[in-house]
Amino acid sequence: MTQASDKARAYSREQAEQFRGQLHELLRIPSLSADPAHAGDVREAAEWLAEHLNTLGLDHVEIMETAGHPVVYADWLGAGPDKPTVLVYGHYDVVPASLEDGWDTEPFEPIEKDGKMYARGVTDDKGQLFIHVKALESYLRTAGSAPVNVKMLLEGEEEVSSPNLRPFIESHLDLLAADVCVISDSSMPSIDRPSIMHSLRGMTYIEVEVDGPHDDLHSGFYGGAVHNPALALAEIISKLHNPDHSIAVPGFYDDVVPLAPDERAEVAKTDMSEEELLAATGAPSQWGEAAYTIRERVSARPTLEINGMGSGWTGPGPKTIIPQKAMAKISCRLVGNQDPHKIYDHLKSYIESITPPTVRVEVRLLTTGEPALIDFHLPEMQAAVRAYEKGWGHTPVFTRGGGSIPVVADFYNLMNMPVVMMGYGLDTDGLHGTNEHLTIEMFHRGIETAIVYLDELATMER
Amino acid sequence: MTQASDKARAYSREQAEQFRGQLHELLRIPSLSADPAHAGDVREAAEWLAEHLNTLGLDHVEIMETAGHPVVYADWLGAGPDKPTVLVYGHYDVVPASLEDGWDTEPFEPIEKDGKMYARGVTDDKGQLFIHVKALESYLRTAGSAPVNVKMLLEGEEEVSSPNLRPFIESHLDLLAADVCVISDSSMPSIDRPSIMHSLRGMTYIEVEVDGPHDDLHSGFYGGAVHNPALALAEIISKLHNPDHSIAVPGFYDDVVPLAPDERAEVAKTDMSEEELLAATGAPSQWGEAAYTIRERVSARPTLEINGMGSGWTGPGPKTIIPQKAMAKISCRLVGNQDPHKIYDHLKSYIESITPPTVRVEVRLLTTGEPALIDFHLPEMQAAVRAYEKGWGHTPVFTRGGGSIPVVADFYNLMNMPVVMMGYGLDTDGLHGTNEHLTIEMFHRGIETAIVYLDELATMER
Repeated sequence: MTQASDKARAYSREQAEQFRGQLHELLRIPSLSADPAHAGDVREAAEWLAEHLNTLGLDHVEIMETAGHPVVYADWLGAGPDKPTVLVYGHYDVVPASLEDGWDTEPFEPIEKDGKMYARGVTDDKGQLFIHVKALESYLRTAGSAPVNVKMLLEGEEEVSSPNLRPFIESHLDLLAADVCVISDSSMPSIDRPSIMHSLRGMTYIEVEVDGPHDDLHSGFYGGAVHNPALALAEIISKLHNPDHSIAVPGFYDDVVPLAPDERAEVAKTDMSEEELLAATGAPSQWGEAAYTIRERVSARPTLEINGMGSGWTGPGPKTIIPQKAMAKISCRLVGNQDPHKIYDHLKSYIESITPPTVRVEVRLLTTGEPALIDFHLPEMQAAVRAYEKGWGHTPVFTRGGGSIPVVADFYNLMNMPVVMMGYGLDTDGLHGTNEHLTIEMFHRGIETAIVYLDELATMER
Repeated sequence: MTQASDKARAYSREQAEQFRGQLHELLRIPSLSADPAHAGDVREAAEWLAEHLNTLGLDHVEIMETAGHPVVYADWLGAGPDKPTVLVYGHYDVVPASLEDGWDTEPFEPIEKDGKMYARGVTDDKGQLFIHVKALESYLRTAGSAPVNVKMLLEGEEEVSSPNLRPFIESHLDLLAADVCVISDSSMPSIDRPSIMHSLRGMTYIEVEVDGPHDDLHSGFYGGAVHNPALALAEIISKLHNPDHSIAVPGFYDDVVPLAPDERAEVAKTDMSEEELLAATGAPSQWGEAAYTIRERVSARPTLEINGMGSGWTGPGPKTIIPQKAMAKISCRLVGNQDPHKIYDHLKSYIESITPPTVRVEVRLLTTGEPALIDFHLPEMQAAVRAYEKGWGHTPVFTRGGGSIPVVADFYNLMNMPVVMMGYGLDTDGLHGTNEHLTIEMFHRGIETAIVYLDELATMER
């Protein structure tokens, strides 16, 4: 640990109360990105951030327009071209919240109570992005410089699926170029179990429609002589998995990167027992590929799920029809290095091949998302391990996220740089729910960890 | 043909215009049984019928109350206990109709045009029940007596599924006792192809619900480790049929009366070609049990259809959930001598036995209906054949109805008497649709056939 980072950490401790007061200001702005009535508030949050960043003496702070809410871009490049550059991504927009939803206090009036700060957005993601702002400030206000170059990309549309972020990245590849991207927008199970997510699943989401007759038929007049579309769809769906619960679609596993022994060992550190799974879900028993642990199945293995299914009459009482059609929403979670479009082709070909000539089938692509699998042996990842050990006080585990965060795959695939997900929240913070909060100690330990991380990036062997 | 029936037929021809004028009066009463606002009209139709029957000099005419609309009961028992008794069933209620639905003329103002009489209810069933009233009148006004005893049961709730008819029958078994029941409430494909339906399918209608998790789950967090209820339901449904499209439920076919060669020959007379099936339904090809013809499959064989299926998200766009539950509506059409409740037990046991322990299943009974299979060799059936040959001018075929008419099974099973369905309408009469009509020549031929039928019943060998 260098003297500079020690001084920066000491500064951050001295300024603790001041930092939190500043965060309160940002939290008071109801920057709801989904609600057009709050578009002005979203912009106000961007302006507040830009003004705040300007006070830190950065090289470049700019509110940049998109087709939707603006992006705040800022950089400090004083470490020079020989030093690595880190790109911090965060988002300043939030989801709705109101007292009527069941909050104990006004969601846009932050309060601190029992070691926690309560406000909408405090963990997702205003508080977590502010950690990086304060880490940079702590260097600039003490050493007058940071050990690496820092760029910040703070968007206002994450809660509405970032419709304009990918085009923004694509048209600003040079401006955003960096050696590593850091995102703090996730959580850990407890304060002594920090984690770094190094993998996210991608997605291929399709809709399958089976039809037969040109209209609903009277089951008494035609039952027994035409193929019931709901039956045909069920028969198709029943052939999508093998008896061992693996996926029966030919080619589906072709590009899956096998789990290496050390990766399985890492996953095992956060395994979920059957008891935990059943308690969390209410399912009567576990299901899935017996050759993989529960945690592997939900995070490191690709899946195929029926998200919805509809046909004919589902209201109260009987209706004796043969439905005209039947449909299903089906989505696959994908892992590195599956290509969502190739998977769509495989799905479509297979479903068409198993559809009998007694019905017609249409397979439509609804959406795709690329998986991201980042090797945790990379120096930027190992630097984060040391940052947690020194700044947080615990060795982190590498985890795989079962869900999809498209921006991670976009950064990783479009900009060819590792993304290090250092989430400083707790799983129980109530993000998107009532009484969202952030543990104050974790806010401050986060700043110290972020300070150390910049130092570790500067000194890592590349 | 006796002199009495000849005279009655001659009378019916002389009175043709008068008979139609009387029917017009009945058709003018908008006896919509489904609409409480028309309850008074329903009763008015019952009163009109009772008064009209009284003018014929019957032994007993009575408006009998039920929990809903009244029943009109009438009898003439002058043929004496040595002669058979026939029970005529009909219904005087109708479904709604209005000019706004697209009728060319006022539906409750009958008109005659191009050999057809147009009005709501003219074929379903006021015109057809009136045929029997006029047949009886034709005997009573000429010979002063009829060759057999005649009872009439005219109900006002057929179009709302006869909720009070079965209790009425059960509590009036002696009053209604007869040797044969005649129902004219159906149709033939063309005037030269009369038919007698001698079989109707029954029904067991169930609802199957599969659940697993206690709530919809995020497919990214739990996908791959719990059994998706929609998938489990599809897997269950896919096991309800064998590869040859027969039904896989053990015990399902135990009580099915095999089709005898002469029964198959009778069905073959009205077989449906694949071209006709595809034109009528729009299905891309036929489906079902290859060992049976299309007409056999839709009328003489039991079936299992998925009437509806619902789970999770079916609205626009993607939603990445594992649905909490999935449900299906499933109904079986049954044939003689399947017992709907035994079939329910078989279905429930089988579905429970193929449901894996990874989900929970609930099988619920929604409704049942008994099948009716009446041997066409019975003398009462063969008497009807001769009645058509002499009174209508064509030999009828015996057909099997694929649908269910509960009242037929109720008469057959509760009262242990054959039911002869002599429908005098055309398949194209537009019942329940716009411009409902009845071909005037068929009305008059129907009366003559009904006259001859009473004669044939009196002289048949029993």
